[in-house]
Amino acid sequence: MTCVIRLLEEIRRTAHYIKKKGKTIGFVPTMGYFHEGHLSLFRRARKEADVVIVSLYVNPAQFAPQEDFKKYPRNFKRDLELAQGEKVDYLFCPTDKEMYPQPFSTFVSNESLSSVLEGKSRPAHFRGVLTILAKLFHLIEPDVAYFGQKDYQQALIIQKMIKELNFNLKIKVLPTVREKDGLAMSSRNLYLTPSERNRARTLFSALQQGRDMVSSGIRNSTEIFKKVKSCLRRTPGIKLDYLEMVDPETLEKIKEVHKRALLVGAIWVGKTRLIDNLWV
Amino acid sequence: MTCVIRLLEEIRRTAHYIKKKGKTIGFVPTMGYFHEGHLSLFRRARKEADVVIVSLYVNPAQFAPQEDFKKYPRNFKRDLELAQGEKVDYLFCPTDKEMYPQPFSTFVSNESLSSVLEGKSRPAHFRGVLTILAKLFHLIEPDVAYFGQKDYQQALIIQKMIKELNFNLKIKVLPTVREKDGLAMSSRNLYLTPSERNRARTLFSALQQGRDMVSSGIRNSTEIFKKVKSCLRRTPGIKLDYLEMVDPETLEKIKEVHKRALLVGAIWVGKTRLIDNLWV
Repeated sequence: MTCVIRLLEEIRRTAHYIKKKGKTIGFVPTMGYFHEGHLSLFRRARKEADVVIVSLYVNPAQFAPQEDFKKYPRNFKRDLELAQGEKVDYLFCPTDKEMYPQPFSTFVSNESLSSVLEGKSRPAHFRGVLTILAKLFHLIEPDVAYFGQKDYQQALIIQKMIKELNFNLKIKVLPTVREKDGLAMSSRNLYLTPSERNRARTLFSALQQGRDMVSSGIRNSTEIFKKVKSCLRRTPGIKLDYLEMVDPETLEKIKEVHKRALLVGAIWVGKTRLIDNLWV
Repeated sequence: MTCVIRLLEEIRRTAHYIKKKGKTIGFVPTMGYFHEGHLSLFRRARKEADVVIVSLYVNPAQFAPQEDFKKYPRNFKRDLELAQGEKVDYLFCPTDKEMYPQPFSTFVSNESLSSVLEGKSRPAHFRGVLTILAKLFHLIEPDVAYFGQKDYQQALIIQKMIKELNFNLKIKVLPTVREKDGLAMSSRNLYLTPSERNRARTLFSALQQGRDMVSSGIRNSTEIFKKVKSCLRRTPGIKLDYLEMVDPETLEKIKEVHKRALLVGAIWVGKTRLIDNLWV
């Protein structure tokens, strides 16, 4: 039976009690509207930790004013059932009022990795992500927190925060879970019309083509981008936001691929923005 | 016997062991060169907590390039003896290399309270203070951390961080300890030549005059500043940095004093910058 907790002092007290008994906490922070990507994290936490805590909170601080905070999909009943199905012990659903008492002025930022890729398209995004996670980590004291590889830059920036601010917990990044046609699972896929949904898979297949080129010995990223972009252009109604080959540690652009690199991309399908990445 | 710890994993393990035994930790973060102000914090911690941990670390992140990081007074042997005299249990003296592994990119900032007063004169100062404290709090897990009222703005910004980022600890702010002539104790007083030292007390006595004016019923801050400034001007070799009457919660300027306010000032005495404040 999944226990729903809404108050900050309640989750703190609960987590503290668990830790005091010597049990480990596996934590999955989410914005809800669970899909198989989330469930894969819950399952891993269930397997590895004594107690599984999932937070469900659409964090306003990581959305810019023009972004989709208001229309972000929410369905508490559905999420609770899915959490229960995965034997999540606690579902933490705080209120904006308690999470961001006004005036709110303290933020955690990454000052070098959050200005590229997603951070370039969404300037205050990672500041919002790090701030809410610092809060949740303080409240929940997890031993391990689980994230998805789809949001690679996010996972990297979180790992930097853990290490640099000396948080006492481990981060595990699990593989991207995909639909049958390869589309990376995302709560935002819900925004897609059936025709957009059809076209959305082109991001994955275009990235795949890029990966295959590297596998076949092509090292020059300009050449690779040319192919990937032409693949995206063939699908109508797709607008490229960015496409980069980056160093997985520094996120610096790579011109010639000679070691492990990450091919990352973001596209617009109608009004929906989708991201994905592949190791090459 | 005060135990000296230099390694991050050692202080984390030590603190964790103390907490596991159900004991409380009183923590005083310092930059060393202890004076009676520091010692008053050690004594309070000794009185209230089972175990007292003091950190001694001149934090480079809170100094601007042109500031006094290099010449900031350091004397480990003297500090260790003073800590021992106050029965401090652990003195934590980390290295820059462990505290700021390069490249370092994650910072904690207060985005509204750190642009006025000290923050105006020292733009990245509070970002450095909050970042090092977040690190120390994560390593040491204190129940209570102690600060001095002399650095009022710092104490306020730290309290905001604790509350807004949901750190699980209490902050206590203890009264400013003064020399016989009223000069607020500060490690930087060491920089003063005997003649400068004589003139330095004028900051306190000028603020006192301002406080007395409020006590006598004068409410207008412009009128109060006029008197305080003329008092400072009478002492040669003193340069005013700032003088303000502020709301103790928001640090907003107050024109007419009708409730508890803080009279704050910073001056240059030669090449030394001194700060002080008084409740009015």
